[in-house]
Amino acid sequence: MELPSLTPGQYSLVYNFMSIAIAAFLATFVYFIFGREQVGRKYRKALLTSGIVVGIAAYHYFRILHSFAEAYVFDVQLGEYIASGKPFNDAYRYADWLITVPLLLVELIQVMALDRQKSRRLISILTIAAVFMLITGYFGEVRREDAELFSLRGLWGFLSTIGFVVILVTLFKEIKDAMNRESGRVGILLRNIGLLTFFAWGFYPIVYMAPFFGWDGGQTEAVIQVGYSMADIIAKAGYGLMIFAIAREKTLEEQAE
Amino acid sequence: MELPSLTPGQYSLVYNFMSIAIAAFLATFVYFIFGREQVGRKYRKALLTSGIVVGIAAYHYFRILHSFAEAYVFDVQLGEYIASGKPFNDAYRYADWLITVPLLLVELIQVMALDRQKSRRLISILTIAAVFMLITGYFGEVRREDAELFSLRGLWGFLSTIGFVVILVTLFKEIKDAMNRESGRVGILLRNIGLLTFFAWGFYPIVYMAPFFGWDGGQTEAVIQVGYSMADIIAKAGYGLMIFAIAREKTLEEQAE
Repeated sequence: MELPSLTPGQYSLVYNFMSIAIAAFLATFVYFIFGREQVGRKYRKALLTSGIVVGIAAYHYFRILHSFAEAYVFDVQLGEYIASGKPFNDAYRYADWLITVPLLLVELIQVMALDRQKSRRLISILTIAAVFMLITGYFGEVRREDAELFSLRGLWGFLSTIGFVVILVTLFKEIKDAMNRESGRVGILLRNIGLLTFFAWGFYPIVYMAPFFGWDGGQTEAVIQVGYSMADIIAKAGYGLMIFAIAREKTLEEQAE
Repeated sequence: MELPSLTPGQYSLVYNFMSIAIAAFLATFVYFIFGREQVGRKYRKALLTSGIVVGIAAYHYFRILHSFAEAYVFDVQLGEYIASGKPFNDAYRYADWLITVPLLLVELIQVMALDRQKSRRLISILTIAAVFMLITGYFGEVRREDAELFSLRGLWGFLSTIGFVVILVTLFKEIKDAMNRESGRVGILLRNIGLLTFFAWGFYPIVYMAPFFGWDGGQTEAVIQVGYSMADIIAKAGYGLMIFAIAREKTLEEQAE
């Protein structure tokens, strides 16, 4: 894949967003790992998983940022950042998602504190759907030259969306059941985490479709990188904070009883 | 923005101050995270937040120092450090403040241990004011060529100051109420943290105005970098130490009761 040139503004925007993502992941890593004592014993596993997810994400973002910086060199004559010849390794994102997406789903199941058999069954279905979604998505992602919806990129994207829909339908059914069981504030938080999953995860397919919008190469590249970084911050750090809030609320309720 | 040349003395001063900042942030990170057991359970969240703030600051100072070192090269003939052509990424400071300033405010609210509803309301007001202050400040900061008070830099700075005043007025009212509730030593500590916020945070706008003082480019650059580093050490590590002292004092009082 040929890397498009970037204006200094586009380059800085991507670079700084990736750096903010690292800071957000490191901050929430410390918060989830050392804040476990704030919640009851049975919710600590969910916080540990949240911490692992943002920890892995911080690691991958260090690599993505480094790879991005190495892939470009500033051309003084053009006043632009041009491809240095070293490839930009976008596969880090998919490697990251392949590990973190199933863990994010596990986190949510853990904080619901369902019985063990049901948990195991749900985790199996969700993991299979997630892996299917990511592998098909990856095959489409590497075909960035497909600039039309009805292309191989479009087809792989469609297959990937099937996995996403399976995850959403499975989760929403479970969240609805849990909301009926839970009282006021926990119910609201569960509804919010359902909405967050829908909107934050739904943002990825939109970013994936960026090449179809007919922007120039630099714009498309900047939108994809900033878009994925923003989506990752919300879907990992933000999601983890909501898991924390649910665990904390349930702990307070159980202490009150 | 053209980077001004620096004398070896100016370069070392900036470099060493940034390095001292990193050491101070890493030291206090360890102290806040592993010193949590020194304080009662309800104050541990405040210490965790303090730890996260200095941890994020340490990350950003690594990046700032690296970016500063890359942006200069020593010219043997001139005997000066001249711009290497790689841009110095000043945006790290604002990225850092955008995350840490709201957290510093959260820290103070947490250590006051107010009721949950009041805490949430205060945090909302303070966060909005802080984000406004930083975004308007950033737009002015990138206009370093504006060397007069009545310029766009001056105007953005003025808007930013409105956010700062909202924060101060809100905080001082809250600190005054808390001082009336609290006994001797905790009251004094709360007054001190109010003064620290006023003076340490008030130092930033003074540094921001450095380009208006008519110094040469190298002097202005050195004053801005050293000034911001000093202000960050006091406002993050020093502030966190005072939060620690308040939490410790309150814990001792509660144990005595």
